[in-house]
Amino acid sequence: MTSRKQMQLALQMVSGYGAEFSAWRMPGTDPAAYADTDAYVRRAQIAEQGKFHMIFIADTPALTVDLGPQTPMFPMDPMLALLAVARETSRIGLVATLSTTFNYPYSIARQFKALDVISRGRVGWNAVTTSEPLAAANFGARVAGREERYARAQESIEIVQALWGSWGENAWKLDAEGGVFADMDQVRPVNLQGEYYASRGPLPIPPSEQGQPVIFQAGGGREGLELAGRYASGVYANPYDIESAREHRQAIRQSAVRFGRDPDEIKMYAGFMFSLGATEEEALERRRQLMRFNPAEIPGRVSYLGSMVGLPLSVSTVDIHAPLPDELLAQAYASPRDPRSPRALQLLKQGLSVLDVLAHGVINYHPVVAGTAEQVADFLQEWFEAGACDGFSVVPDIAHDGVADFVEQVVPILQERGLFHRDYEGATLRENMGVPYQYGAMQP
Amino acid sequence: MTSRKQMQLALQMVSGYGAEFSAWRMPGTDPAAYADTDAYVRRAQIAEQGKFHMIFIADTPALTVDLGPQTPMFPMDPMLALLAVARETSRIGLVATLSTTFNYPYSIARQFKALDVISRGRVGWNAVTTSEPLAAANFGARVAGREERYARAQESIEIVQALWGSWGENAWKLDAEGGVFADMDQVRPVNLQGEYYASRGPLPIPPSEQGQPVIFQAGGGREGLELAGRYASGVYANPYDIESAREHRQAIRQSAVRFGRDPDEIKMYAGFMFSLGATEEEALERRRQLMRFNPAEIPGRVSYLGSMVGLPLSVSTVDIHAPLPDELLAQAYASPRDPRSPRALQLLKQGLSVLDVLAHGVINYHPVVAGTAEQVADFLQEWFEAGACDGFSVVPDIAHDGVADFVEQVVPILQERGLFHRDYEGATLRENMGVPYQYGAMQP
Repeated sequence: MTSRKQMQLALQMVSGYGAEFSAWRMPGTDPAAYADTDAYVRRAQIAEQGKFHMIFIADTPALTVDLGPQTPMFPMDPMLALLAVARETSRIGLVATLSTTFNYPYSIARQFKALDVISRGRVGWNAVTTSEPLAAANFGARVAGREERYARAQESIEIVQALWGSWGENAWKLDAEGGVFADMDQVRPVNLQGEYYASRGPLPIPPSEQGQPVIFQAGGGREGLELAGRYASGVYANPYDIESAREHRQAIRQSAVRFGRDPDEIKMYAGFMFSLGATEEEALERRRQLMRFNPAEIPGRVSYLGSMVGLPLSVSTVDIHAPLPDELLAQAYASPRDPRSPRALQLLKQGLSVLDVLAHGVINYHPVVAGTAEQVADFLQEWFEAGACDGFSVVPDIAHDGVADFVEQVVPILQERGLFHRDYEGATLRENMGVPYQYGAMQP
Repeated sequence: MTSRKQMQLALQMVSGYGAEFSAWRMPGTDPAAYADTDAYVRRAQIAEQGKFHMIFIADTPALTVDLGPQTPMFPMDPMLALLAVARETSRIGLVATLSTTFNYPYSIARQFKALDVISRGRVGWNAVTTSEPLAAANFGARVAGREERYARAQESIEIVQALWGSWGENAWKLDAEGGVFADMDQVRPVNLQGEYYASRGPLPIPPSEQGQPVIFQAGGGREGLELAGRYASGVYANPYDIESAREHRQAIRQSAVRFGRDPDEIKMYAGFMFSLGATEEEALERRRQLMRFNPAEIPGRVSYLGSMVGLPLSVSTVDIHAPLPDELLAQAYASPRDPRSPRALQLLKQGLSVLDVLAHGVINYHPVVAGTAEQVADFLQEWFEAGACDGFSVVPDIAHDGVADFVEQVVPILQERGLFHRDYEGATLRENMGVPYQYGAMQP
């Protein structure tokens, strides 16, 4: 194995409330947290106390949910949220998603590099292509095919990185006595012309302490792997189990090698959700409470669970507060099309009620551990030591206490076990991630 | 006259150094201020102590100057600078330029409204069309004709305002117990389709304390006047004398009336530069010092001054350290093509040396007063009482001490004379400007 010995942690910020549908209704949560930048700052400060490597703000420029029962999934604006955090923290990395399809490369380059300078080298850009039709419609467009979207992404990243390098590393002279502000021989246009994007440059922003922002990537498929292998130092991935995580990580590393890079210079972060309690029962009760807020969702979830284990489950035919009858369980099998199915079946066979199996998060978007801090640490250790990832993108169930609980309870265990650093390795995101300094375009 | 009795003041921030070419070389100035967001914040805080109505950050997304001798004219990023200021001030307005040509309306709407919410209703957008070819080239474009640029601007502002109104004023329910986050009947798509721009919406951002950001405008000509009359509550203008300022202000007010608006709801801010000293001689010496940093500029400026007063002046034919000989002055006349010429000729006839006439700023982009605080206050009073403007966009010569000097020396005189408020009228930019609340598209 060539991975570092210690895992890395990203805290994924979800619009102020946490990952769960009803988090905003939990006691202690401010229902208006969406518009409260202080809340972002406070949580990032707590994460920094816990030595999290970075916060990560996912983004799609569209309203993608029904705000009747549910809160927005994305912040009012990711760059403004990061700037607020940048000015009130000193070590934690700051990563946000910005679409390569619905932003001009010059605008991306400018805001991210300015933020990188302001934060003294702590910024990362998660470059995604955006396939959400509602987002496209906000920009008067339709979603292009996968090939075009990734061709745009490649042009966008190349122009952005070239613009980042267009103010030479040593161009800033600041010689007030001699009257030389900058050496203009080192501040040069890039004059790039692609099929979809073009930019002249230069971008008049000096280097940050880490040179320029770190590129992250989150897309899947052949094109996503290629983009990651070419440009990314970090990849946010969403595997449901160790086996598929390992495969994905190996594919990413191989893609980096194909582009002439050291595979250790690309880190994969697996999405992970947790609910903490002093006991597993307490953690589960926290999740049951979240479910009780939305009884209308239960019938659909029960049917969905049924489809994962090959049973026609329905709230009208089974008692969801009890374990499934043995005769039903005897016919159950894990759907080969859903990697979450084996865990769902396992919990049903352990005799948990249907509702409690759902409360364990078996149909969530990421793997979920509802349990004690030890159980959460065990899960992270197992995945990490199996080579499933280089770290985790941790999504709290409920942000208002979930972040602090993780920092106070889980982080010390990971540190005790030698799995997580006790302090930041350096001052910049690149130093803390263990990826090389870069300035300007990636060298072939 | 229908103007308010007191003038309004905007502080124009110029990339951290001040308006003058060589400000960055003055003792006490940090040559690296360009990358120092703290410097922006500190100056805005001082301006807020002086009850300035707003700070204003002009912007063109391009490097437009030679960074050899000179500093950038625009900040690393205007929106990030404003966000930093927003979080560390509480009353002062926050206005930035963003191009209607090189930004998607959805992106403009999102960042400005988020900033407006974060600042609790203190934000303004200076909507400009951008005619700088270097900026166009950064976005892979050429500068379009005036007609197209203004057609784009109109579509952009209409879509932006519609998006701002797409989250209904009373949509936010925040009923955690009842489980109603928002009333989706009040969060509606806008579905706007123009010739150049389109957007579906909605934009999921609630109203700020002032509803939505204030629109500013800075363009000239028939199209600029029309845009101002239709949409703007504030106009930044660059008149050189009282007469042309009054004409421009009347034209703006008439344009507002043509679009069915109350002309008192549109405020004109005249650009104005100053250099302060305990005596006029001290103020002039400050400006002489700035000129001495760039001896290479002198010959060109002398020739330019000559063209303003009909004389073939050159450093090789006249002693620039002495007044012009009477026989030369007898032939001089103020160029009718340059409104700055009468003042240049007046100073030459007063017997000032050629260099001192230049030091008075007669060929600067804005009117300049180099003198005592009383002289600066006199100038502002004369213009204001002549109906030349509703206020001023004040540009300090050297930011590092110029802002504080103005606040400490000029503001108290204006307050003493009853020309400037002693405290903010309200909490929002609209309240402090005296312009009405607005939400969503302008009602016809």
